Amino acid sequence: MRKIPWAEEFLENDSAVVDARSLRGNWKKTLNKEKLELEIGMGKGDYCLGMSQLFPEIAWIGMEKNPSVAALAVKKFREKPTDNILFIQDDAAFLNEFFEDGELDVIHLNFSDPWPKNRTAKRRLSSPKFIEHYKNVLDDEGEIQMKTDNQLLFEYSLVTFADYGFKLVDVSVDFRREEHDEDVISEYERKFMDKGQPIYRAVWIKGEHKNEI
Amino acid sequence: MRKIPWAEEFLENDSAVVDARSLRGNWKKTLNKEKLELEIGMGKGDYCLGMSQLFPEIAWIGMEKNPSVAALAVKKFREKPTDNILFIQDDAAFLNEFFEDGELDVIHLNFSDPWPKNRTAKRRLSSPKFIEHYKNVLDDEGEIQMKTDNQLLFEYSLVTFADYGFKLVDVSVDFRREEHDEDVISEYERKFMDKGQPIYRAVWIKGEHKNEI
Repeated sequence: MRKIPWAEEFLENDSAVVDARSLRGNWKKTLNKEKLELEIGMGKGDYCLGMSQLFPEIAWIGMEKNPSVAALAVKKFREKPTDNILFIQDDAAFLNEFFEDGELDVIHLNFSDPWPKNRTAKRRLSSPKFIEHYKNVLDDEGEIQMKTDNQLLFEYSLVTFADYGFKLVDVSVDFRREEHDEDVISEYERKFMDKGQPIYRAVWIKGEHKNEI
Repeated sequence: MRKIPWAEEFLENDSAVVDARSLRGNWKKTLNKEKLELEIGMGKGDYCLGMSQLFPEIAWIGMEKNPSVAALAVKKFREKPTDNILFIQDDAAFLNEFFEDGELDVIHLNFSDPWPKNRTAKRRLSSPKFIEHYKNVLDDEGEIQMKTDNQLLFEYSLVTFADYGFKLVDVSVDFRREEHDEDVISEYERKFMDKGQPIYRAVWIKGEHKNEI
């Protein structure tokens, strides 16, 4: 998308856009909630804004690297502000500088950039380096929730999370086959649904299998 | 399908239909191959017959519980017999009586009955009791290869294998998106492909994740 000239200044002056490093270890206390959920790559914010309204008892963080995109999300937030969400305009590569070990309860990855070429696979949000960060910043009972329309990213993610110590606990190859009133549908997602394309979803927890029969 | 009156007698008299218990531990020696692959629920046999022709250096076993269905497969085999396949007409619940620990290199589950009701979930070939058998009879480097058109069975299998000590190493939510000359398409599978329905596929190996970054 096109660069927005007012984005950086707008983000700097909005009190809901925070210096993540200064809040490390204090997110729940700051937002006064017991559960903390982060969306990495919130895009225009439909999902995390909708979820923060749907679940006011949870603390939410919307994170987006691209300032122009982040600015649109925060602008949307200002139309209907709530007190249980903050925003980070930064790179997920520094996740461990933003969060203490175990500080997050859920990490959401929605329609992340698939980076389809092998050469750029390292940038995928489900590549090993990122997974290692998630393992650190997630609570022991924490989980990753991913949704995507992209088959290759979904397949890559299923194998890579399994390979790096996460256990699949829920999966759907057509998530919108059933109603999910507990889960907000973004404008972006709606486009794929309108084309009749399936939405893929997976949920992982930290750790190995525990079951023996 | 309808019961075939001549099925049981036909199976009893065909030398390729064997008493599995008597070959326990000696399958590779009997078939004079170094690699042994089993299809559980071969149906009318298209897959394992085609694969045994495509890979003559591998020993194959086609297994089918239903005598009438098994008879059709063996009849088809007799039209173009090869010396690298044998048949078992029996129940996978007794797998450990048919194979020694570690005797199998690959187990194939193709378009297995989804048993969609919770009440009958125990009969699914990817339910815990069966998985435990697979773990025993598979070689340490062995693998499970599953294909299905059924979303619910696929989703159930992804979660259940992960939960009982298998690691996903390959997965596709549209396996026929690309050509797979190494993999036979059965008549049954072709029907779904012709309707434009995706074929789901997963491959698991025994054991936990090994990778740390």
